Amino acid sequence: MKKHQILFGLAALLLLVLVMAGCGAKTEQAVSFRADIPAGTLAAEEFGKFYPKQYDGYKKMAEMTNEGTKHGGSEETDKLTQWPFLKEIFAGYGFAKEYNEDRGHVYTLDDVKKIKRINEKSISACWTCKSANVPGIVKEMGDAYYNTNFHELKSKMTEPITCANCHDPKTMNLVITQPPLRNALQRLGKDPDKLTRQELRTYVCAQCHVEYYFAGENKVVTFPWDKGFTPDDVLDYFEEMNFKDWDHPKAGVGEIKVQHPEFETFQGSVHQAAGLACADCHMPYKMEGGEKISSHWVTSPLKHIKESCMTCHREDPEWLKERVLYTQDKTAEMMGRVGNVNVEAIEAIAVAAQANGNPAVLDEARKLQRKAQFYIDWVGAENSMGFHNPQLIMETLNKSLDLANQAKLKAIEAQTGMAAPTWQPPATAENAAPASTEPAKKS
Amino acid sequence: MKKHQILFGLAALLLLVLVMAGCGAKTEQAVSFRADIPAGTLAAEEFGKFYPKQYDGYKKMAEMTNEGTKHGGSEETDKLTQWPFLKEIFAGYGFAKEYNEDRGHVYTLDDVKKIKRINEKSISACWTCKSANVPGIVKEMGDAYYNTNFHELKSKMTEPITCANCHDPKTMNLVITQPPLRNALQRLGKDPDKLTRQELRTYVCAQCHVEYYFAGENKVVTFPWDKGFTPDDVLDYFEEMNFKDWDHPKAGVGEIKVQHPEFETFQGSVHQAAGLACADCHMPYKMEGGEKISSHWVTSPLKHIKESCMTCHREDPEWLKERVLYTQDKTAEMMGRVGNVNVEAIEAIAVAAQANGNPAVLDEARKLQRKAQFYIDWVGAENSMGFHNPQLIMETLNKSLDLANQAKLKAIEAQTGMAAPTWQPPATAENAAPASTEPAKKS
Repeated sequence: MKKHQILFGLAALLLLVLVMAGCGAKTEQAVSFRADIPAGTLAAEEFGKFYPKQYDGYKKMAEMTNEGTKHGGSEETDKLTQWPFLKEIFAGYGFAKEYNEDRGHVYTLDDVKKIKRINEKSISACWTCKSANVPGIVKEMGDAYYNTNFHELKSKMTEPITCANCHDPKTMNLVITQPPLRNALQRLGKDPDKLTRQELRTYVCAQCHVEYYFAGENKVVTFPWDKGFTPDDVLDYFEEMNFKDWDHPKAGVGEIKVQHPEFETFQGSVHQAAGLACADCHMPYKMEGGEKISSHWVTSPLKHIKESCMTCHREDPEWLKERVLYTQDKTAEMMGRVGNVNVEAIEAIAVAAQANGNPAVLDEARKLQRKAQFYIDWVGAENSMGFHNPQLIMETLNKSLDLANQAKLKAIEAQTGMAAPTWQPPATAENAAPASTEPAKKS
Repeated sequence: MKKHQILFGLAALLLLVLVMAGCGAKTEQAVSFRADIPAGTLAAEEFGKFYPKQYDGYKKMAEMTNEGTKHGGSEETDKLTQWPFLKEIFAGYGFAKEYNEDRGHVYTLDDVKKIKRINEKSISACWTCKSANVPGIVKEMGDAYYNTNFHELKSKMTEPITCANCHDPKTMNLVITQPPLRNALQRLGKDPDKLTRQELRTYVCAQCHVEYYFAGENKVVTFPWDKGFTPDDVLDYFEEMNFKDWDHPKAGVGEIKVQHPEFETFQGSVHQAAGLACADCHMPYKMEGGEKISSHWVTSPLKHIKESCMTCHREDPEWLKERVLYTQDKTAEMMGRVGNVNVEAIEAIAVAAQANGNPAVLDEARKLQRKAQFYIDWVGAENSMGFHNPQLIMETLNKSLDLANQAKLKAIEAQTGMAAPTWQPPATAENAAPASTEPAKKS
């Protein structure tokens, strides 16, 4: 066959392909993507009629398995058995009664209805991240929703977390539906309706996977982000307003309970700095039936390393998993030890209080204990066992250990009158004066 | 032009290329690579006559600059001014008098001759990583070399660290010349003469950039690797033999001085697990005059991010540098704090000893202090400010902080008779028995 014959054949084929592709083209977004589901639709099944592949993924969240992971997964693990120190640091609060590893989005309504932390006095703020009905109800009731009795609104909560929490049913665009995140972004000068698609692929998750507290008389769910996202920033925020979730009976001080700060921990990490969104790892793109979709089986990336990690990392899945475990195993080991020292700080305070220790010094011990507990709780509540930001989490463990030990020493000082020696380097690095050492003294 | 004409043209061109390439081919290694420098040649200049590009890189190590780096570099920084806690933890030992950041290979002889730690009693073991003459002298003198007076062998040390420390002059192959590494590898069942080229690109550096001690009466430089490479493994090794470098006058216990464990720290890191050798980052391949060579300017990769990092990482140099600093800044901040707590432990022991505290409890405090100091010293002596293995270094800081606080508490117990409460979780995770809490008791 001559060269010009080959070329002619190729050109004809190209023309055919172009003609075929043109047949499906429209000036508006393709019908296959946009279904114009009626506004206000909340049920996942309704979305599923038009997006069966994504709906299959969503339903897969009903499967409970830790297979593929080592530290966490989707089984309903009892964290209090796994980490006995938690029961001690949360004494006097609901989390000491029951503290289970979260199950998937499809179970949020079932789970919130049966957890022991909910009692007859619980408020509707507790529904906020459990039901797709919430944004609509807040629109109706305003901030009065949050402080309404939990049981009063039970019949209105018909849907768990569904497609509607993140998607506009009409356009299927990603959208921030949760009022607490809308408010937090606005306080930070960011318009929740003008986020890029890649930003939204993180912020839709940040509607719930964040630290929050109940603010003011209305108990409005509020994100403590005004000073920044680091554990230090959030603690500063709470310290400044002297916030407490409950009083620890043994420690004798008001404590802060940290909730799942996945979004905050991720900030500053190598993956965040590389431009990744939560969805890039937890809802990776994949091919299904010849179509590229985001996986809607929201789960640990360790369960689909190929789609989640190997888009960028060229190593094999077993190697990549070993690297994740190298960080997670070290974090878990440190967390166990630091947790125990936190309990020791509480014990030391209790013993000193019973022995009528110096009240002013005991007060210092309690302030230190409260801070130490905030840091260890951050690490324990954050759902990645350090992987979302290893350096930050290990630094946070170190801070907790440091403060817990300071609390112990202060408690002992309150009891014995003997302050532990402290040592600070000279004020300036160039300063040749001898380091200031402070000998033990009676307080 | 017809297809067969094109093919004929291509074939003719290929033939020409093959003929041209064939002109330079020999059955042995190319002359341009192998110079057959006489065996026993040590001077870098002699190698430089045949390998001018590599020699230019070697000479560049004379340039002293921290430009491009933040934590360390090649300037002769005084670590005792930079980290005042070091002066306290090394009290009673030479490192409290002077402890400078290392300069490049070309300066090793100048530096060892002028450092204040060398006195009239110093032994020749101190020459071991300072001169290319050492392997030949050890061949002559055997182990008697190490314990020979330092000044007695001064005239024989004519060369600093040169090409000869890593290269066979005849074949230019990489070779392990230093007896301490040869011995250590043999103890681990590894033949130092049967390493792969990629292994050698790490092990030639591990001839010196490692932890070592002077063993036995002959003071033979020995690497404490028999139990493994982690800080825990090396501490176990030293604990088992009850090794000490000196007695700390204030702590009242024999201490271990850690030396630059770069090789050991690197083990288990993501870069080591990815198959990288030291040389891949510190002596990256580069093009010079149309030839691919290894850079022989051995320095911080931050000074040549393009060659060192961007071979694998696609991000831009400023971004990559920021990621390195994210780890290093956190490590430095933690190290400062943990260092200060280590000094406080020493102070607490000194105060308790002066107050005639319980000797048995004081002894426990001292054992804990010795371990805490080993871990913080490891981090301070290791030349990467955490980057070689962030997880391991942060874990090591955490262990030091934990042990230093335990030492403080034991010292206070020795003085006051009051033991701090300890807390351990129930023996098994499934165990429903209440956690054992041990109240403060008089010891």
